[in-house]
Amino acid sequence: MSTTTTTSPSPVAAPAPVPETDTETASVRAARTRSAEIERRIARDPSMFRVLTGDRPTGALHLGHYLGTLANRVRLQDAGVDVVLVVADYQVITDRDETGNLPAVVREVVLDYLAAGIDPGRSTVFAHSSVAALHQLMLPFLSLVTVAELERNPTVKAEAVDAAGRQGRGMSGLLLTYPVHQAADILAVHGNLVPVGADQLPHLETSRTVARRFNQRFSAAQPYFAEPEPLLADTPTVLGNDGAKMSKSRGNVLELRADEDETAAYLRRARTDSQRHITFEPDTRPEVASLLRLGAHFVGTTPEALADTIGAAGAGRLKEVVTEAVVEGLRPLRARRRSLAADGPAVVGEVLARGAQRATVLAEGTLTDVRELMGMTYL
Amino acid sequence: MSTTTTTSPSPVAAPAPVPETDTETASVRAARTRSAEIERRIARDPSMFRVLTGDRPTGALHLGHYLGTLANRVRLQDAGVDVVLVVADYQVITDRDETGNLPAVVREVVLDYLAAGIDPGRSTVFAHSSVAALHQLMLPFLSLVTVAELERNPTVKAEAVDAAGRQGRGMSGLLLTYPVHQAADILAVHGNLVPVGADQLPHLETSRTVARRFNQRFSAAQPYFAEPEPLLADTPTVLGNDGAKMSKSRGNVLELRADEDETAAYLRRARTDSQRHITFEPDTRPEVASLLRLGAHFVGTTPEALADTIGAAGAGRLKEVVTEAVVEGLRPLRARRRSLAADGPAVVGEVLARGAQRATVLAEGTLTDVRELMGMTYL
Repeated sequence: MSTTTTTSPSPVAAPAPVPETDTETASVRAARTRSAEIERRIARDPSMFRVLTGDRPTGALHLGHYLGTLANRVRLQDAGVDVVLVVADYQVITDRDETGNLPAVVREVVLDYLAAGIDPGRSTVFAHSSVAALHQLMLPFLSLVTVAELERNPTVKAEAVDAAGRQGRGMSGLLLTYPVHQAADILAVHGNLVPVGADQLPHLETSRTVARRFNQRFSAAQPYFAEPEPLLADTPTVLGNDGAKMSKSRGNVLELRADEDETAAYLRRARTDSQRHITFEPDTRPEVASLLRLGAHFVGTTPEALADTIGAAGAGRLKEVVTEAVVEGLRPLRARRRSLAADGPAVVGEVLARGAQRATVLAEGTLTDVRELMGMTYL
Repeated sequence: MSTTTTTSPSPVAAPAPVPETDTETASVRAARTRSAEIERRIARDPSMFRVLTGDRPTGALHLGHYLGTLANRVRLQDAGVDVVLVVADYQVITDRDETGNLPAVVREVVLDYLAAGIDPGRSTVFAHSSVAALHQLMLPFLSLVTVAELERNPTVKAEAVDAAGRQGRGMSGLLLTYPVHQAADILAVHGNLVPVGADQLPHLETSRTVARRFNQRFSAAQPYFAEPEPLLADTPTVLGNDGAKMSKSRGNVLELRADEDETAAYLRRARTDSQRHITFEPDTRPEVASLLRLGAHFVGTTPEALADTIGAAGAGRLKEVVTEAVVEGLRPLRARRRSLAADGPAVVGEVLARGAQRATVLAEGTLTDVRELMGMTYL
């Protein structure tokens, strides 16, 4: 993920290079440096950080989620960081009409969290719709950003194009204001760290802007909100077995909850290329590189080293090795998941109830402070 | 307020008449007919209706508020309608940065309500920021309208021009989403009646659209939300003593809390015209007509009859008559207000606490229903 290469201006007459590319790359580079510094601070004193992140519950989580975000959240939790996960149920309808069978899907997502190692005794998992106090922050926060700023948000732009393509209709008010909900989610619980991919950096900017402007306007003497910082996660993009990015909407995912046979069958169908000798060359051999990354992650080695062990044995052998690595690597997770699922619906219900309770305490405290800072105390 | 004249197409070649004018007038006419029917139903069974309306707390209320809305709310309350008044504190920052001294201003507004006859034992008065459950409705409701629809809302358009003029900057997210907050306010308490001026009819359309689309999408078998209906109030626009519409922002108001001397001084400075003979001709003699309406309201007669009693005695006599009518008409209100104000801050605090409690019960009930209808129940 996240390219940091800069295109040099061509020596022949050509349109001036778009400055945005440079800016974005510079900001990604700065975020990377800052993230390394934050990782060192986490190692020294993890109690200084609260992570806020989460998922849209549109389906059970898959390998792409696991390598992309979930494993990293478990790592942060285990390092002693306070991890708060929001199951963003309202976000399901930013770009579609139907909510689907939310209780069933939310259950699968929470089971994936727990199976992956999220510990409800240390981390907080709550459904977005369960915490009313959080949503009230929408109103003051909406006053701090302009419509033009919201429309410029790259994620809103991209999702608007997607939504228009899918349904041939205009962007919903929910989609436009998405960055402000995100600010409410993060700031309601005083999250100060948000794991993101490089492409999500501009999205977090709205949350930072909201925090900064709120402080300037209503809490100038002593800033009330910390500006949440992005933690750039250097996690690989996992490709589906069709060679495209693994994603629910493409229907090319391997779900975490799949069994061994399904895993083997899925990986057998993985696209590779015509070169027999296996090498790690992400730019020219993306499918092979993705398989190598996947195997390396679970074996605990580098993609390059894994490639060397296969060498001339070819794609068939590569798939065997990766299948074994994934099956063995996910064995404990899957066993935990089956056991949790067998315990019945109460497990997930209790996790969400406990999470909602803690998130409500945090959000109500923030809301009380915000009312006081804005002078809205009448009782 | 509210002109209902229709311009006929000219027989000579001219641009086609803008259809909007016709449509708007037709819809105003329809609303007027419907409002008369609602008034008959109120007389038969007032318990079928809950009114939701309110004020932005930007200053103590003035004569324009009283004649325009407040007297009508008291009338509806006294007719047995459940009246819910929201003191819309967040709306203060739709078009400005500062909230001002909100507790002081809110206190004045609530004192005006109570003095005018709003009875906290029968009606509900609450501050917008006090009821978290209400605000959560923003998210599902924002998903039901497009950004284009919000941008077309005439009130948003008008306020956006005002805001841009005042501060030379873009429209805030709070201003754009104003019709959706309004929908949340109304529907959270299941308000089914909203007193409006003819110019506010299109504004209520968003609330009606939200109710309708919510029902279609999440409650098709049996509509959950009633579409709130406008109750067209045939109340006069009160002009300030400079001849322009009385409004806080023009600084031409006579506050309800003013004393007799201030009232007399204010009305002595009222603009009239050079014709000595007093007649009620709103189109050609707006200032004189406004004074006649004001006097007639408090005397309990028609502007025409009041004009006849003055006749050739001229503007000086008109002002004397109107001053006496206003002073006598407001005497009980002002006495009540002084007495309430002397009782200290607890009076207003208790009204708002009681109101917040009732609005919270209503809004939390609605939110629970909405979560269930949307399938967001996990615990």
